[in-house]
Amino acid sequence: MGSLLLYAGKYLAKRAILSVVKGSGESDMEDDSPELSPPDDQLDETNPVTEEIFSSWALFILLFLLGSALYTSYFLQQRRIKAVHETVLSIFYGMVVGLIIRVSPGHYIQDTVKFNSSYFFNILLPPIILNSGYELHQANFFRNIGTILTFAIPGTLISSFVVGVILYIWTALGLDGVKLEFVDAIAVGATLSATDPVTILSIFNAYKVDPKLYTIIFGESLLNDAISIVMFETSQKFHGHPVHFLSLFEGLGLFLMTFTISTIIGLMIGILVALVLKHSHLRRYPQIETCLVLLFAYESYFFSNGAHMSGIVSLLFCGITLKHYAYYNMLRRTQIATKYIFQLLAQLSENFIFIYLGLSLFTEVELVFKPLLIIVTFISICVARWSAVFPLSRLLNFIYRARFKEYTNRSAYHSGGLSYQVVPDEISHSYQVMIFWAGLRGAVGVALAMGLQAEAKWTLLANVLVVVVLTVILFGGTTASMLEILGIKTGCVDERAESDDEFEIETLNQRLTLSGQDGFNVNMMSNRPFKKSTASNTNASNVSLALRTSLQHYFNDDEVHNGSSPSLHNNKSIDNLVGDDDDELVAQHEVDDLISGPTSPTANLGQLDSTNGLLGSFLSGEEHAKWFTRFDEEVLKPVLLDTLPQAQNKGNS
Amino acid sequence: MGSLLLYAGKYLAKRAILSVVKGSGESDMEDDSPELSPPDDQLDETNPVTEEIFSSWALFILLFLLGSALYTSYFLQQRRIKAVHETVLSIFYGMVVGLIIRVSPGHYIQDTVKFNSSYFFNILLPPIILNSGYELHQANFFRNIGTILTFAIPGTLISSFVVGVILYIWTALGLDGVKLEFVDAIAVGATLSATDPVTILSIFNAYKVDPKLYTIIFGESLLNDAISIVMFETSQKFHGHPVHFLSLFEGLGLFLMTFTISTIIGLMIGILVALVLKHSHLRRYPQIETCLVLLFAYESYFFSNGAHMSGIVSLLFCGITLKHYAYYNMLRRTQIATKYIFQLLAQLSENFIFIYLGLSLFTEVELVFKPLLIIVTFISICVARWSAVFPLSRLLNFIYRARFKEYTNRSAYHSGGLSYQVVPDEISHSYQVMIFWAGLRGAVGVALAMGLQAEAKWTLLANVLVVVVLTVILFGGTTASMLEILGIKTGCVDERAESDDEFEIETLNQRLTLSGQDGFNVNMMSNRPFKKSTASNTNASNVSLALRTSLQHYFNDDEVHNGSSPSLHNNKSIDNLVGDDDDELVAQHEVDDLISGPTSPTANLGQLDSTNGLLGSFLSGEEHAKWFTRFDEEVLKPVLLDTLPQAQNKGNS
Repeated sequence: MGSLLLYAGKYLAKRAILSVVKGSGESDMEDDSPELSPPDDQLDETNPVTEEIFSSWALFILLFLLGSALYTSYFLQQRRIKAVHETVLSIFYGMVVGLIIRVSPGHYIQDTVKFNSSYFFNILLPPIILNSGYELHQANFFRNIGTILTFAIPGTLISSFVVGVILYIWTALGLDGVKLEFVDAIAVGATLSATDPVTILSIFNAYKVDPKLYTIIFGESLLNDAISIVMFETSQKFHGHPVHFLSLFEGLGLFLMTFTISTIIGLMIGILVALVLKHSHLRRYPQIETCLVLLFAYESYFFSNGAHMSGIVSLLFCGITLKHYAYYNMLRRTQIATKYIFQLLAQLSENFIFIYLGLSLFTEVELVFKPLLIIVTFISICVARWSAVFPLSRLLNFIYRARFKEYTNRSAYHSGGLSYQVVPDEISHSYQVMIFWAGLRGAVGVALAMGLQAEAKWTLLANVLVVVVLTVILFGGTTASMLEILGIKTGCVDERAESDDEFEIETLNQRLTLSGQDGFNVNMMSNRPFKKSTASNTNASNVSLALRTSLQHYFNDDEVHNGSSPSLHNNKSIDNLVGDDDDELVAQHEVDDLISGPTSPTANLGQLDSTNGLLGSFLSGEEHAKWFTRFDEEVLKPVLLDTLPQAQNKGNS
Repeated sequence: MGSLLLYAGKYLAKRAILSVVKGSGESDMEDDSPELSPPDDQLDETNPVTEEIFSSWALFILLFLLGSALYTSYFLQQRRIKAVHETVLSIFYGMVVGLIIRVSPGHYIQDTVKFNSSYFFNILLPPIILNSGYELHQANFFRNIGTILTFAIPGTLISSFVVGVILYIWTALGLDGVKLEFVDAIAVGATLSATDPVTILSIFNAYKVDPKLYTIIFGESLLNDAISIVMFETSQKFHGHPVHFLSLFEGLGLFLMTFTISTIIGLMIGILVALVLKHSHLRRYPQIETCLVLLFAYESYFFSNGAHMSGIVSLLFCGITLKHYAYYNMLRRTQIATKYIFQLLAQLSENFIFIYLGLSLFTEVELVFKPLLIIVTFISICVARWSAVFPLSRLLNFIYRARFKEYTNRSAYHSGGLSYQVVPDEISHSYQVMIFWAGLRGAVGVALAMGLQAEAKWTLLANVLVVVVLTVILFGGTTASMLEILGIKTGCVDERAESDDEFEIETLNQRLTLSGQDGFNVNMMSNRPFKKSTASNTNASNVSLALRTSLQHYFNDDEVHNGSSPSLHNNKSIDNLVGDDDDELVAQHEVDDLISGPTSPTANLGQLDSTNGLLGSFLSGEEHAKWFTRFDEEVLKPVLLDTLPQAQNKGNS
């Protein structure tokens, strides 16, 4: 038995080595049965069985790296090492293995593990964007939408132009022998303006950074990508054509339309899913329900991309809409499953992308590295980010002060304790530095750079790739220290994470069995920030009192003021949590207390406690938000959510 | 607002149409900004952004079809239509859309949605195999292993040779103008001997067919694929070489070694996962745990394929090992998640494969259809299946009778009421017909056929494709009627499904809250078949009494007989179900009663109640099973499972 295993092991090792060596171009090698090897080399190349063997090795290597990265992630979390992030290590692993593949004989595996922009856009990117939309803290996001859009749209434009101009001037000097058209320089600038949402946010999550800063950086980096893609495509259209001054406005108009239409596509598909789930009995088949939700979300991405729109924007808004409406029409099991699966896919994709980046540094053989150009580019992206973040922050602070002044002047309240002079900055200096530091570039840039039409394509691609890897390692590796140096508030009670955990199985089971006493504490805890804020109203300014009251009005006390729409949201979530089990033995009000607390909009008020967030909300259009929330509660939710639990039970019985 | 939307809609539609038309070879079309289109056609082809748009449309179409197939599946289940299966409809949908793509202008989408054997083997097939291994009812499978291997190994060999010889003779007649080498004919025979595990088993599941028949067909169709692949590769190695009689034995030896080594790889990786999970604290991070289990399973597939072994066999046994050991070292949440995700991926893959098959009937432009050859091939596969199933069934019945006789002669019991003459067939005639009917061919055959090296490759591929689609539609569409005609026992209480449901969230929640009284019934129910069989022992034959006692011995009454290994399995599952929550308030014995019942090996005895299954077990080597079960309980489980709950709790605190 032992000798058989030994023989088998030897045979296996031999075949494994042979099959790897076989990829080295010499297709007719000495196999264990030489007379059986295929007679013609040509056919060998097109033979799917042979092809399959090489792609198997390539996939084996990629999955092995992915497994190592995940195990490292576990190890880092286990030892509570927060400073080094797994994505930085993923890039290193990728680089090491890429180097090994490069120096070893054989080209087939090298060809297979190359960075492929089609795989990136069609397989790796969608799960990350979808999960971002699904996990988004909606109240925070829309409260800071003004700030986010300011950084995302003018910020990316400024950044692209600064990088483009610096690169154009540098190449015009001719030191590197690289010739660049102006539109190509702008295109490279666009690829290097897409910031990466993965690494920095994982670190922020680990440290529980102030949700406002988190939301701004998160929102910016998400929309950034979409804007870079649109800018890149627009500038590539001008490749080989004369550029007019009017082209700038044409490009801007095209961009705004793309953004709007993409958003509408995403919203429409999200609403469609909510309606399909409402008007069918899909919840009886959780597997099919989960699949369909996933498929619909992907459809929004591919449809949007196919229609020359921005798939990222569509998918992001589709994810948000799914979570806002469709989520409450799903079976409890599907809710858990979709959250878990989206998270899982996103985590796998994120790690994979960084491994892929590391690998392609060595496996892309055509790359031409120009050290001077790389240094200049790296400096230029720092300058570009600087000139986008700081002026725009000042502008935001200025507008914020002006609007605050206007608001206090117009309103009748002058008895407040908060004087006009002490208005805090919307974005403090330390936040500005952190936003600057968070500008590490990601895989979207590299994937875009593969589509460059310039003559110096391979030089530029190498340039972008190296700069991206450098930013991830330098900025990503020092984010944790930077948080400490800047003295940014960490360890914030993360309402978002709390509300996520509430949906997990373990917690639910535990609470259901612990029958109330533990659950009551949880409920108290989740309401604590809100209650505290109500209690501290007497000391706060009248402005915030007025705002708070209006917010409470439509978030909490619907039945008192309207009488007509008795807090649909709460009823809905309870109803769905209990599911279709006709399980009347569970004390309904207990579940109500336990579960609806943190998921209902009431809990979102928790973060309004910080004066910044509260005032930020009126900057981004208080009137607008009020209008939408009422429309949402009175029209959209009754139409899109399962409003009649009786009808639902009848349908399922 | 309305007119803006209208304009946006028009613009979108225009771009969508343009981008589809753009794929039609005329790359320089009239866009909305004609002066901005790229100046050279060549670059347009290699531009990832343009490429991305076409692959977006292709993916959009594929996902749309997948969504339609799933919605149809829901609709069929909703209306309780069991006769038509979704896979048959998936093929139809694929064919209709394939036809539309074919007749519409543009080749890019047509090229993208083509059947690609690399995608099939690397992406679509693994989830199905992994889920099969994970969902396998292990007791049933290993009880019928003799029968399964008989149909799988000699059955596939016979089938391949019969199809091969008929095709060789037919082509030698020269009526179709197709010339075929003998080894190529055998290769085609191998591709057409891989039966499909998807459609037929879904129907069997819906009808709750006798688990024995289910297990035989399931096991055969799984191992079938592996054997066809090995046979195909072996015969393709002989392409262009003289064939000796000895080559047959060489091929057989190669095949047996491949099978053994692949099994060992799968087992090793499964055991490795169990050990990693046991000796780490991965359970604290359920996301990472789930990812790693999935990645390890895929690694077994790709490693095995890369080493010229059979990935299918490795993955199948890896899945079985994972479920047998690693599953009990996972966090409760990971157990649920892995089961759900594996099922989900398998369902998506299954539907996708059939859509893909339907599509490729029209989108593969090189296909050469020869109607006569197709008819001959279809007849030949029926003949081949006939000559494999019926003689082998007789052989099995004969061996079974001989062994039964030997057993009754050797044993001292002669007082039994069961006389020698009335021994029931191991495989009755109606079962034989059903096994014959279950021989519908699947996508594995098509994927293999793409690797044919014969001159008439495109004719043979068309041939295989049409025959596969025909068998799925004809046999798959009539399985339900056939079950009725043959009078096969349906509506069997499916222990397997019961034990699966036990692991679901809803059920668990419900039972935990219903505190015992409901749970007690469940426990009673799951033990009922076993108790009934014990009670009826007095009336049954002595043979079955002896067998039952021996089975009870190692499945149930370990502590009574051994004293040393107090039913590890039970302790383990409880321990894992409660998880790491230090949640001592849950009444331990209650959970014990509730959950361990159906998942513990005791429940597996339920199906031994049927005389066929019981007697089948001794056919497949009673001694062997006893030896392994004892080794498993006394050596493997203590080593591989978390035996010390105290240590585990300490590690996690």
